[in-house]
Amino acid sequence: MELANRLERLGTETAFAVSQAASDWAAKGNEVFPFHLGDIDLPTPAPIVEAMRRGIADGHTGYCPGPGVGELREAIASVVGTARDMPVSSDQVVVQPGGKPTIGKFLQCVMNPGDEVLFPNPGFPIYESQIEYLGGVGRPYSYHATDTGFAIDIDVLESMITDRTVAFIYNDLQNPISAESTHEERAAIAELAMKHNLWVLSDEAYFDIRYSGKSSSIAALPGMAERTCILYTFSKKYAMTGWRLGASIAPVEMARWIGQLNINNESCTNHFVQYGGIAALTEAEDDSRLLLQTLRTRRDLAHQLLNEIPGVSVALPNATFYLFPDVTDAMLAKGFTDVGDFATAALHETGNSFCTRAHFGRPLPGERRKYARFAYSGIDVDRISTGLGRLKDWIES
Amino acid sequence: MELANRLERLGTETAFAVSQAASDWAAKGNEVFPFHLGDIDLPTPAPIVEAMRRGIADGHTGYCPGPGVGELREAIASVVGTARDMPVSSDQVVVQPGGKPTIGKFLQCVMNPGDEVLFPNPGFPIYESQIEYLGGVGRPYSYHATDTGFAIDIDVLESMITDRTVAFIYNDLQNPISAESTHEERAAIAELAMKHNLWVLSDEAYFDIRYSGKSSSIAALPGMAERTCILYTFSKKYAMTGWRLGASIAPVEMARWIGQLNINNESCTNHFVQYGGIAALTEAEDDSRLLLQTLRTRRDLAHQLLNEIPGVSVALPNATFYLFPDVTDAMLAKGFTDVGDFATAALHETGNSFCTRAHFGRPLPGERRKYARFAYSGIDVDRISTGLGRLKDWIES
Repeated sequence: MELANRLERLGTETAFAVSQAASDWAAKGNEVFPFHLGDIDLPTPAPIVEAMRRGIADGHTGYCPGPGVGELREAIASVVGTARDMPVSSDQVVVQPGGKPTIGKFLQCVMNPGDEVLFPNPGFPIYESQIEYLGGVGRPYSYHATDTGFAIDIDVLESMITDRTVAFIYNDLQNPISAESTHEERAAIAELAMKHNLWVLSDEAYFDIRYSGKSSSIAALPGMAERTCILYTFSKKYAMTGWRLGASIAPVEMARWIGQLNINNESCTNHFVQYGGIAALTEAEDDSRLLLQTLRTRRDLAHQLLNEIPGVSVALPNATFYLFPDVTDAMLAKGFTDVGDFATAALHETGNSFCTRAHFGRPLPGERRKYARFAYSGIDVDRISTGLGRLKDWIES
Repeated sequence: MELANRLERLGTETAFAVSQAASDWAAKGNEVFPFHLGDIDLPTPAPIVEAMRRGIADGHTGYCPGPGVGELREAIASVVGTARDMPVSSDQVVVQPGGKPTIGKFLQCVMNPGDEVLFPNPGFPIYESQIEYLGGVGRPYSYHATDTGFAIDIDVLESMITDRTVAFIYNDLQNPISAESTHEERAAIAELAMKHNLWVLSDEAYFDIRYSGKSSSIAALPGMAERTCILYTFSKKYAMTGWRLGASIAPVEMARWIGQLNINNESCTNHFVQYGGIAALTEAEDDSRLLLQTLRTRRDLAHQLLNEIPGVSVALPNATFYLFPDVTDAMLAKGFTDVGDFATAALHETGNSFCTRAHFGRPLPGERRKYARFAYSGIDVDRISTGLGRLKDWIES
């Protein structure tokens, strides 16, 4: 029996292999320090769970409209609009089972086969997978290291735009590298989008995972709302990754089509979980602040301990729950040239499990430095301390 | 800003307009008898809700594997295999957020652009929508009325198969018409599938909604397991429509691809809801039997009252929660030639809200009789009685 050709273009998240290797290593009786997870080991705040229970008791176990429960759409519109200083109406909001569904649905709405789409590399691997799966041509743009983190080279970016380019995927507060645009960089990207009439997917999964200051959305810049779809998710801010609750926030016509895709794909998002979402936005701010404090303590410790390892260096990011250290010199000191081999040896010699740059896109021409991604959302301070201590001992040995 | 061309091919469920019309009519202070809903007005059994709560308490609020929680995949494999007298392994089972996601994912796996797929008409409208959206060519096959319900004309079906035909969508225990194949009809379809090397999507959403005897799956016939994907859902049997929980059960290689589509589309299905699913399969048989008893009482009453209306006739179906009466003569008596006009008049004159044949595909050439779909899953016996009494009075007036 023959399968369809399109499957040849379907990518995946290779980081799952890292989870598997960590599980296999742990199953053999070894201690594992899980820095590979983009997941959260903290419980969902109680008011959210309680509101979901009330939703069930109130009989919300049947279907709801494909674009979501009206009250949740209104709450998202209000909270997202206020946080970004921009007007958002509830008919722009389409509830999704998680953040991720917005990636494929956005691309289905704006990209014809053969069209080109710019996406970040290193970046979340599903961007490239969905661009190619849906018949588009992915054009990876890159970042360069600065004293404070990473930046996008706007001139290089503009040189990649052709008359087939239809969209730009922008992941400010970036996974895996934790880059955040300056206001100037964000404004320059908006200029390019308007000059070349591009759609923008603004992946704002980590918009609220920041430790000081205030996040900004490219959608709030003049002329951008009409061409930008925001990927919104409850996963990170409220420790709700497994709940699968998020939203696409798009210009009204696109939002209508995304709602119709919902009706075709999954009918609607789980009905009573949406009542948990309403409570998250209206009753869980204190819980979310506590969660951020926990993450900040972990960030500070992991940042300090990584920088104490010879040949490892990383700037202190102000957002996300990832550190993306340059490990080139530590690798060389241990005799490694391949960052995957280095990670495997680190797992087996020290129990530290982490992803590498290779899990976030194909290395680009001229890329010489080697990077790893340490997530601190799924590991507590004691184990951060023990794990990175062992990593240091091994590198120094 | 221009949207992608593929959206022009995207269909929808026009039945939502019926819900809207019913809501609008009710909002004006009118009593409405909701026969249009494919939803269930009964609560989800308590053991399922309780198991989900335990799942949250046990910390299952983070991600789970894309194809689903191992224990649930094993439970589905066991229960589905036993009920169908066929071996099913857990690696054939891919958990989905509902029954519907299997339709598009199956088609993505087997159909190239330009390929032809046979689908039932009248039938669930998302089949045709997804075939055309994904670039295929839909070929509708029809049913003819018999003394006991409806049957497929196998010779006509075979005449529709060309060298571009790759798949057959089969909805035994059918929505909207409640047809069930005889063993001979099912075997003849299996013969055709093997002779012409077709993939089969067996939509078994109503497999367990039957009032006597035992359902059979085409997948259990010799030579069929390797070419059949079963659409399985918890929605109907356990009153879990809004939970969004189901599964694709496919040959192993296809199941692997469907799992990879999950990783691309939604990461995974809600984690803790899957613990509710395990309890449904292992602890909720008694509750499910009670639910079926309630539905059977409604079926018997609605069937009797509909047949008491002059010019309305419907056989007693043994499965699903739909009645699909021939209303041609009642329409003529009231001066209607369009079944949609008839339904609108019935809503405004009697409060009865129901779908018509037109919500389940474009009428086929030579189709002369007119049909309506009465769902009895969302309306209790008192209101069935009052509603259909008023319908009778109006038709007779």
